[in-house]
Amino acid sequence: MTGTIGNGEAVPAATEGARREAGRSFLVGLIGAGVGPSLTPPMHEREAAQAGRRLLYRTIDITDLGLPPESVGDLVQAARHLGFDGLNITHPCKQLVLPALDGLSPEAAAIGAVNTVVFDGGAAVGHNTDWSGFAGSLRRGLPDAARDRVVLLGAGGAGAAVAHALMTCGVRELVIADLSVERAATLAERLQARFPEARCRPADTARPERLLADADGLVHATPVGMAHHPGVPVPPELLRPPLWVADVVYRPLRTELLHHAEQRGCATLDGGGMAVFQAGDAFELITGLTPDRDRMLTHFTQLLQHE
Amino acid sequence: MTGTIGNGEAVPAATEGARREAGRSFLVGLIGAGVGPSLTPPMHEREAAQAGRRLLYRTIDITDLGLPPESVGDLVQAARHLGFDGLNITHPCKQLVLPALDGLSPEAAAIGAVNTVVFDGGAAVGHNTDWSGFAGSLRRGLPDAARDRVVLLGAGGAGAAVAHALMTCGVRELVIADLSVERAATLAERLQARFPEARCRPADTARPERLLADADGLVHATPVGMAHHPGVPVPPELLRPPLWVADVVYRPLRTELLHHAEQRGCATLDGGGMAVFQAGDAFELITGLTPDRDRMLTHFTQLLQHE
Repeated sequence: MTGTIGNGEAVPAATEGARREAGRSFLVGLIGAGVGPSLTPPMHEREAAQAGRRLLYRTIDITDLGLPPESVGDLVQAARHLGFDGLNITHPCKQLVLPALDGLSPEAAAIGAVNTVVFDGGAAVGHNTDWSGFAGSLRRGLPDAARDRVVLLGAGGAGAAVAHALMTCGVRELVIADLSVERAATLAERLQARFPEARCRPADTARPERLLADADGLVHATPVGMAHHPGVPVPPELLRPPLWVADVVYRPLRTELLHHAEQRGCATLDGGGMAVFQAGDAFELITGLTPDRDRMLTHFTQLLQHE
Repeated sequence: MTGTIGNGEAVPAATEGARREAGRSFLVGLIGAGVGPSLTPPMHEREAAQAGRRLLYRTIDITDLGLPPESVGDLVQAARHLGFDGLNITHPCKQLVLPALDGLSPEAAAIGAVNTVVFDGGAAVGHNTDWSGFAGSLRRGLPDAARDRVVLLGAGGAGAAVAHALMTCGVRELVIADLSVERAATLAERLQARFPEARCRPADTARPERLLADADGLVHATPVGMAHHPGVPVPPELLRPPLWVADVVYRPLRTELLHHAEQRGCATLDGGGMAVFQAGDAFELITGLTPDRDRMLTHFTQLLQHE
């Protein structure tokens, strides 16, 4: 009855036609804490307008509303009743939303977190486009990067999605470092079970200076480097070609980490691509329309410049 | 701090500027039972588009959702949380919604029913544009009609709003007939208290043939004559000039009652004007934009023709 709903691109076949129906409008929301400055609403609205469709994207800020993170389930149910076509879900609700859903894409189930909910008839189906967004950005920005051994910094929500993307993109050995050794080990174990042909392991914390010694790439997925978390997550002297360096932080787009990596000659990938591609994939899941992701990236860069 | 909020036209002054802000989009819903075929959504959406604004209007059908009428309060609260700018409320929720509101316009309070909710910052304020819609339609369609003595058929929700409009429009004596004599008496009593200069009384049920004997006008506000309630609410032979006849039923626009009244030479007013003007007044309250009511009436007629 449905097509694949796990690759971040396809939607149930019967629904797809209905969503694409001419003149149909779309109502989308973003549930989370402090979501007011999100750039996802203007990206969705502009992309729909380019397709000649009316799309309204509302931010639903639990902090402003004085609601606890656990209220995400009630908000999802309410959104379904009130005619929303889909939702994005962000911090701190990506895991708390799970019990409110009727189904999950295989990837969302594997990652254990949902950032996109599609209302498909009566059902609320959870997806994760953080992983597909990172995968899309990596394929676009660093298409030829070696992927034999990649180091991931951060085993939290973003880290779990990025790790899934890296394994899907063919990384043969993933080394996960986190301030919590246990969190790194747990994520590595889950990934190992899902991707048995590859190798996933926590970093050897006894020898941090060796972390990047044989790595092809470094992916950073912690808050370090964000406007309110300044800093560099690794000693800059460890960054040297042919290591490539990717950051999920996009405010600022050019983090200190990427600045150092570029100066030392490393190929880099900023967090903008992931932010745009997760939005593009969610837009496609919710509306059934194919967005122009390059146009979205240009728009996103304009939006960031005007902040 | 606020302007008059009772005349169906003005909105709180501070909000008005914000609502009119260029580029602002609007999200509106209609809560009730069997609201799917309502023509209010396309009227609002078209009128906003004419003003160059994005407005999405969603129907929230409690029957389809399997929710009891009492759930209207929760739905209103949810709509506020999810970024709606306003709501229309219809049968069977116009009175049940009252406890969920933070304030009422004086007219909504007097009528005891709300068909429009405006979210003004954190507050949900209830209005009634059924009465102002009928008043606007009467002023437009029968501007010179004598109003000394008017007979109203039906003391239910529509009847209460129409009665309020008739008194506001200067009717000197209003006679209310209803299958429930008690309901007619209760409505007459409430109106008498609010409009002490005029006279409001229930009809003399002992002499129904005398009901229209000295009347200038007859207003029909029961479901009789609707597509699934065929019939004429009064013996056609009682209709004779100079009596004017108004109907609140608009599906069909030309009811059997109006057909007979026209054939006998009476001036008539169909229910389309009230349907359009209530929508226009709600649109203005919710968006702060001034609609072109003649354009809305043309659009409404087109929509009905295509059913």
